[in-house]
Amino acid sequence: MNREDRFTITYQISADSKESAEIMADRIRIEQTVEMPPDTVPVKAASSFAEILSLQEKKPGQWITQISFPFSIIGDDITQFLNVLYGNISLLEGIMVQDVDDLLFRKLFSGPAFGIEGLRKSLNAYGRPLSCTALKPAGLSASDLAERAYQFACGGMDIIKDDHGLADQPSAPFKQRVASCAEAVRKAEQVSGKKTFYFPNITTSPDKVLERFHQAADLGADGVLICPQLTGLEAIHTIAREKRLPVMAHPAFSGSFILQQHQGLAIRLYYGKLWRALGADSIIFPNAVGRFAFTKETCRQLHKCMTDPFGGIRKSFPTPAGGIHLDSVPEMQELYGNETIFLIGGNLYQQKEGIEAASKEFQKTLDGGIQ
Amino acid sequence: MNREDRFTITYQISADSKESAEIMADRIRIEQTVEMPPDTVPVKAASSFAEILSLQEKKPGQWITQISFPFSIIGDDITQFLNVLYGNISLLEGIMVQDVDDLLFRKLFSGPAFGIEGLRKSLNAYGRPLSCTALKPAGLSASDLAERAYQFACGGMDIIKDDHGLADQPSAPFKQRVASCAEAVRKAEQVSGKKTFYFPNITTSPDKVLERFHQAADLGADGVLICPQLTGLEAIHTIAREKRLPVMAHPAFSGSFILQQHQGLAIRLYYGKLWRALGADSIIFPNAVGRFAFTKETCRQLHKCMTDPFGGIRKSFPTPAGGIHLDSVPEMQELYGNETIFLIGGNLYQQKEGIEAASKEFQKTLDGGIQ
Repeated sequence: MNREDRFTITYQISADSKESAEIMADRIRIEQTVEMPPDTVPVKAASSFAEILSLQEKKPGQWITQISFPFSIIGDDITQFLNVLYGNISLLEGIMVQDVDDLLFRKLFSGPAFGIEGLRKSLNAYGRPLSCTALKPAGLSASDLAERAYQFACGGMDIIKDDHGLADQPSAPFKQRVASCAEAVRKAEQVSGKKTFYFPNITTSPDKVLERFHQAADLGADGVLICPQLTGLEAIHTIAREKRLPVMAHPAFSGSFILQQHQGLAIRLYYGKLWRALGADSIIFPNAVGRFAFTKETCRQLHKCMTDPFGGIRKSFPTPAGGIHLDSVPEMQELYGNETIFLIGGNLYQQKEGIEAASKEFQKTLDGGIQ
Repeated sequence: MNREDRFTITYQISADSKESAEIMADRIRIEQTVEMPPDTVPVKAASSFAEILSLQEKKPGQWITQISFPFSIIGDDITQFLNVLYGNISLLEGIMVQDVDDLLFRKLFSGPAFGIEGLRKSLNAYGRPLSCTALKPAGLSASDLAERAYQFACGGMDIIKDDHGLADQPSAPFKQRVASCAEAVRKAEQVSGKKTFYFPNITTSPDKVLERFHQAADLGADGVLICPQLTGLEAIHTIAREKRLPVMAHPAFSGSFILQQHQGLAIRLYYGKLWRALGADSIIFPNAVGRFAFTKETCRQLHKCMTDPFGGIRKSFPTPAGGIHLDSVPEMQELYGNETIFLIGGNLYQQKEGIEAASKEFQKTLDGGIQ
């Protein structure tokens, strides 16, 4: 079969012998395609089989296998690709998805509609990282949140996103919140003299996400926040393909896929390639020195995956978050460089001089960029 | 605050001292609600705070904490509930969601539209387990799959479901497959003299699931199969609320949430309570003696969670699957009892006498029920 008709997935297998590793690789090959004993597969369906290309011991007890799958088993359905990638085998112990070849992403996924360049252009912000903060807490009214958005924007913040816990609560219903905050940010831009994005959270029931996306746009939002592991992963792709607003993706509910040592999906593949390919213009991930568990090396690799050339797919803005403090920004800039959105939430609210002054200070730290 | 205005979530925390456990419990309380330093939360939003009700060491290094949350932080949004349940803290090590009080499920979720009783009534099948098989493999044409459906139904199968890997591939496009298989099953019912359900797989992009659900109904399907961890969990609730067709839920892509020792969601809570509350009339889970890793005790507990009284929410049909053989059915009946759908895929295709005769044998084993 022509190489263009197939794609390769790389899995890591935990096994104490070559024989066990071979059995596991063979199970992946079967379980993710025909899902029945090979000798019962009719000749007519033989083209559905996956093929083991290689199996090598990487370190004691850890094996790497490359398995080739036919595109015909997916059709053009991204959700079915996710099923082939890690559907049934998610229920088996000791299998981790390491990588997928770029050909698959290039053929099946459209990537970000705007990407780093698109966001920079709309903000007219070049040669420096971008600033971002979170509107919170849930429980405040729409007008209280709008007042906070006004202050952040007066302070010159590049992006103000909703806390991912702001949904459609009675305290600040979605439409009212988006309209009020977008209006407040437009007013503040007159004061600051610069563009500020407002990204409301559109995470909700899978069938309502697209509707909420368009509501956000109609109500004046400049982008949206979404938690794809709550809405179904392909939801990012659906809204990104509308090419109407940039999409910021948030990792809530996704930790179980990436926190395990020998199971789940490799962090780089999951946030770095998959979320980028799905179309996230900005990808929030737990920062190394914050309150979550990622190492600096992991964060560096994630940054690279989001910004390296990737088969014509636009770059996603790496957006480290979680426990970043105003006074740790210079250190973070050294770690991540200019192609980064720094998201500071809680610590800006802690600054004694208030959030407008804190935003100005944050922005000032970034303005020079890194030379 | 009134007890009816709040609900309780039980978390397990891995910590080596009471002090560390207290810090973790406090992080859950903050991270899942206001997500900012408590002293920066305005008085107006104080009602959003969660409250730690108890913290006890269950066994060395494992702590159980009960945390009370206000309903106001959810509104009526199930997806936002999932975010409160395990959103950001999914990214922290050593936290497992153990349970949620029934009040939450009763207030927020509608449960199965048909349940065990509804399925039994439509099939006129009482006092015995139900039989189920899977149409496969992907790669066959719609008419080849329909021929297989015809044979299974002639053999008297109660439920024929699509393999969860049948999506909308060019080999057997969704609409063509559903129409052909439904028609074949209707013809076979004339031969068998009994009702057989056909459940096509409607798993696809989150925004398209509802449309595909109605297409399935319009094309003559008797129910649907869905992989909720691929479509977004609330998708089950959305389609179940249509009260048009029963819903069978499949665990593809969900393993990462439930395979970890001290992380993720307790298996019973996840499949047993959550999927039931979401509205799955039948819940497929990995069988104890099959090719997946669940123990008999886990399977027994799951069965109980799906069928025990649950605040007025209908029962889901426990549907163990994976590696069940025709000759292990009597043993399985002893483990699970009559309130069970036994799903045999691969092994029926292995029977030398063909799938129609194998279905008859399967059905005959179940017909007497368990006395």
